[in-house]
Amino acid sequence: MRHPEARITNICAKIDKPQNIADIFPKLQGKIDLICKEPDINEVIEKSDVVFLALPHTVSMEIAPELLKVGKKVIDLSADYRIKDSRVYEKFYKVKHKDKLRLTAAIYGLPEIYRAKIKDARLIANPGCYPTAILLALAPMVAFNLIDLNSIIIDAKSGVTGAGRKIAEGFLFSEINEDFKAYKVNTHQHAPEVNQELSKLAGKKVEVIFVPHLLPLNRGILATIYVKKSHKVTKSQSHKLIELYKKFYKREPFVRIRQEGDYPRIKDVAGTNFCDICVKDEGDNVIIIACIDNLLKGASGQAVQNMNIMYRFPEYTALL
Amino acid sequence: MRHPEARITNICAKIDKPQNIADIFPKLQGKIDLICKEPDINEVIEKSDVVFLALPHTVSMEIAPELLKVGKKVIDLSADYRIKDSRVYEKFYKVKHKDKLRLTAAIYGLPEIYRAKIKDARLIANPGCYPTAILLALAPMVAFNLIDLNSIIIDAKSGVTGAGRKIAEGFLFSEINEDFKAYKVNTHQHAPEVNQELSKLAGKKVEVIFVPHLLPLNRGILATIYVKKSHKVTKSQSHKLIELYKKFYKREPFVRIRQEGDYPRIKDVAGTNFCDICVKDEGDNVIIIACIDNLLKGASGQAVQNMNIMYRFPEYTALL
Amino acid sequence: MRHPEARITNICAKIDKPQNIADIFPKLQGKIDLICKEPDINEVIEKSDVVFLALPHTVSMEIAPELLKVGKKVIDLSADYRIKDSRVYEKFYKVKHKDKLRLTAAIYGLPEIYRAKIKDARLIANPGCYPTAILLALAPMVAFNLIDLNSIIIDAKSGVTGAGRKIAEGFLFSEINEDFKAYKVNTHQHAPEVNQELSKLAGKKVEVIFVPHLLPLNRGILATIYVKKSHKVTKSQSHKLIELYKKFYKREPFVRIRQEGDYPRIKDVAGTNFCDICVKDEGDNVIIIACIDNLLKGASGQAVQNMNIMYRFPEYTALL
Amino acid sequence: MRHPEARITNICAKIDKPQNIADIFPKLQGKIDLICKEPDINEVIEKSDVVFLALPHTVSMEIAPELLKVGKKVIDLSADYRIKDSRVYEKFYKVKHKDKLRLTAAIYGLPEIYRAKIKDARLIANPGCYPTAILLALAPMVAFNLIDLNSIIIDAKSGVTGAGRKIAEGFLFSEINEDFKAYKVNTHQHAPEVNQELSKLAGKKVEVIFVPHLLPLNRGILATIYVKKSHKVTKSQSHKLIELYKKFYKREPFVRIRQEGDYPRIKDVAGTNFCDICVKDEGDNVIIIACIDNLLKGASGQAVQNMNIMYRFPEYTALL
Repeated sequence: MRHPEARITNICAKIDKPQNIADIFPKLQGKIDLICKEPDINEVIEKSDVVFLALPHTVSMEIAPELLKVGKKVIDLSADYRIKDSRVYEKFYKVKHKDKLRLTAAIYGLPEIYRAKIKDARLIANPGCYPTAILLALAPMVAFNLIDLNSIIIDAKSGVTGAGRKIAEGFLFSEINEDFKAYKVNTHQHAPEVNQELSKLAGKKVEVIFVPHLLPLNRGILATIYVKKSHKVTKSQSHKLIELYKKFYKREPFVRIRQEGDYPRIKDVAGTNFCDICVKDEGDNVIIIACIDNLLKGASGQAVQNMNIMYRFPEYTALL
Repeated sequence: MRHPEARITNICAKIDKPQNIADIFPKLQGKIDLICKEPDINEVIEKSDVVFLALPHTVSMEIAPELLKVGKKVIDLSADYRIKDSRVYEKFYKVKHKDKLRLTAAIYGLPEIYRAKIKDARLIANPGCYPTAILLALAPMVAFNLIDLNSIIIDAKSGVTGAGRKIAEGFLFSEINEDFKAYKVNTHQHAPEVNQELSKLAGKKVEVIFVPHLLPLNRGILATIYVKKSHKVTKSQSHKLIELYKKFYKREPFVRIRQEGDYPRIKDVAGTNFCDICVKDEGDNVIIIACIDNLLKGASGQAVQNMNIMYRFPEYTALL
Repeated sequence: MRHPEARITNICAKIDKPQNIADIFPKLQGKIDLICKEPDINEVIEKSDVVFLALPHTVSMEIAPELLKVGKKVIDLSADYRIKDSRVYEKFYKVKHKDKLRLTAAIYGLPEIYRAKIKDARLIANPGCYPTAILLALAPMVAFNLIDLNSIIIDAKSGVTGAGRKIAEGFLFSEINEDFKAYKVNTHQHAPEVNQELSKLAGKKVEVIFVPHLLPLNRGILATIYVKKSHKVTKSQSHKLIELYKKFYKREPFVRIRQEGDYPRIKDVAGTNFCDICVKDEGDNVIIIACIDNLLKGASGQAVQNMNIMYRFPEYTALL
Repeated sequence: MRHPEARITNICAKIDKPQNIADIFPKLQGKIDLICKEPDINEVIEKSDVVFLALPHTVSMEIAPELLKVGKKVIDLSADYRIKDSRVYEKFYKVKHKDKLRLTAAIYGLPEIYRAKIKDARLIANPGCYPTAILLALAPMVAFNLIDLNSIIIDAKSGVTGAGRKIAEGFLFSEINEDFKAYKVNTHQHAPEVNQELSKLAGKKVEVIFVPHLLPLNRGILATIYVKKSHKVTKSQSHKLIELYKKFYKREPFVRIRQEGDYPRIKDVAGTNFCDICVKDEGDNVIIIACIDNLLKGASGQAVQNMNIMYRFPEYTALL
């Protein structure tokens, strides 16, 4: 569409009969003119260099191997290659893992942490929406060993598109409009993803408390995170932490650190690939708030960012 | 619940296992303490004097006869007994009518028009939500023969609960939030109900143009109605029409005529049994706007109003 | 921003102190890097070829003459140059018109009707949001003389951004959320704009009935329009009208005529410059529904479309 | 209105000209028929036994003394008599306290904690909305000394009516709809109220971390609270904590403890005086979620509950 170096050659989906994608989503008219049809793996292989898989968990790991075998690059938006420990995957996703071989080879596609590895990756495990916001919020303090790793509490709130387009009573307008609630309290499948990545950053085991909530709006995630400082930290001040964050992310095109007293809000990131972060020193505690568009930085925008890195395009191409 | 003369003795529904209604709808706690279970017609007959049927269309006409046979009174919230001409019913509801016998005996439960008949009715066909607002808006002018009966245009807008609690893609939060659209353009099943009742009032055949729309909110209907004056009407003025409406409805506890320049809004009627109406003279045309809560005056509130009339309770009992 | 042939050189506003526009609207970060400050007419003249005026009504007509005098082109988004009859302007906008001289020279910037004149215009009166949707909906039938010009009824619904960012009780979240109402019933200032343009198209005086309503959503306008056919029209059918509309707009990049039974919805046009239209034949009547994003096709998108025409850029540049 | 033992005799407000309260709020029609006018203290004294003050902070403490002097009972919904330490009040509310004398005599009107004192109170300081939900959520564990008092983290979310009906840019529909954000991060004026009451319950100083957020909906507060267990607690399980909570609140008509896995939601309490609570054991941590309607249990409903207690009416009168 807007990408000067890439061309979409193929769109597939479970679909009753082939249909132009711009008829299914009228907003795409004038931007793209392609028939969406049932997947034909040979045609996909023939026409593509890189394939984006936005499949249900457990389906990706059946398709990805076929594409990788013939030298295609794969950016997988499902959870199938995110969790390195297949037992953890199986516990949270309730199925056996069928491609353990490639689990270790897959690169976790969070550019701000793994950019170097993404450059040469053949298989990208594109991060979950909650983990993207949470990891960007915590990485600077975990990397510099500033916090008590047993103290991390994450109170996250997501708009309804976070859950896909499921047709279920719980997602009816009359159920969500004028309502707000927690769900999967400390049992959400994104918690092990966060734990894995924080443990890697910290060099030791981290386990967070994670409570997601459902917001009555379409797009956006906001996570409010509470941590205790580690004992070695002397009294600091918010502006010092802000400086630390600004330094940590100073070359990042999509992370914006807010000034003191200026808090992230969903309106400022919806429709963008930005992650907005504020950090506030509160004596023994630190409060961090991070905010993304779950459909862009939390999914497809980040996938394009990963492609840009893999192909040495300017990282912000088609994302500003 | 709040009704001093009535007691709810029985609540039935298609339900997997019996459950206290206050557990299903926690808002009812402290107000009602009854097990909701699969219907048992004998138990219903034994315990009740009057039965409210809130069943899908085509099911009511199977249950109502059994209750009527043993002398129970029935207030039916479905469409099964509203349309007197069974061919029209069959055209719009796509099923054969199975109880034509009682079609003529059933009283259309719009108290402002049929109060006298409702008093002695044994079977009430409780009006549809759109027809309630529309008929109250038009009755005064149709009854006094002030308008061109071929000119009636009804542009109606309803919140999502108007459609029940259907689990379908079109009713997902992400589909309705931040959207607005027309549906069933001039083909909605409430049009024949409106036509039938206006024709009776006018003493000749009336056919309206009726376009319903779906609002991104939970409760409420607002209908904006456009009519041409009949030729015999000399130039009038809004305040004269307002006086006419006030007179027509002067003894009605639930119809409120707005002052000039003060338009009805959903917020003022949501959660009430009121119908708010304004009428504006525009030369050859008249614009009428009417507004109700589709779940109360447009459904269950009106059903209770009908019961109050049938049993000679003060009409507003439990409704203010 | 995304326009390859244009560059934004100057952004002015009533503002307390100069501030980067990307700090005011964080979504613009990475897209534009300009200080927004109080207007300095000399600087504007020095740096610009074409100036977009998004000023309150009555202010534009004080600034535009100064820019036009020195040869700048002006695209005015206010109502100041839309109404050719200054008495009508003064009646609806409650101020004296101060630049009657240029009223006749200003071109009404609706490309689908006035493209030829826009090409060489020096002063564009960019249409109002309601009139854009309404005129595109009615133009084919009025141009071909198919309808009774005294019968036009327009029931329009707009999201809250239609009214700008006014700080008033009526625009509070708690007032608009879960509410819906009509306002300015047949007295809205866009009615004379519609009447003027339809009269020009028809070659005789047209006066419409126009009732706007306020939707609880951010962006989008949907107008449902009811007209009677003129006597010379023989019975037609929806698909014939659809064909007529498709033909009328066949070279238009931003007008989409919907297939039979497929109605426009705000979701499909929000965020785009498209106007979606459906037309339905109902015997003596025709129902037309049109839908735009009030901020794009109804304001700034159309302004850019006009600039593209004036400078012979492809008309869709930066708009797809 | 619905209260069989009480009668509203007087409604006052800052108002331009006297107006029937049912004309200002059409929903009240048929329920109440009283002129709302500028306050006349002598008339208030003459006609009332108990006076509800819903005045801005700093105004209550000027009116309350006059009423108390002549023996009236006062239920004050402002913050003026909630904070016992006038220096803390002055720090958070930015004005000098003018009635320190009565600060100690005023009873904090949270019936679940202070019922005995409320019975004989002459001046009730009706609790804030956030503190009501938070204190009910924490009281059982603080009272039984089960948690580390330095570990309390409160992540609270409120609908827009929590902030009153302020006319400011931040409360416009277009600012709040489709947005979500934190505000007053750990600086909200309800924090000292929570700290004061928890400290009393615990018998030692408690200081919480408190971050409020603004939800895009009209009514309701949900607080998610994270605490660490105190060292003396042996490993427990959620159902044991649930039992503890059920026991603690077993005679309370308006506190409902949810079953394991069943989380509170705003929809279930909106329009009611209930506080719904769930408690979940997570090893060293406990997560508690509490939910109220900020306008009822968080304000006027609780005020009526207090009146019922003061006058020995059944506590739930007019509240179910």
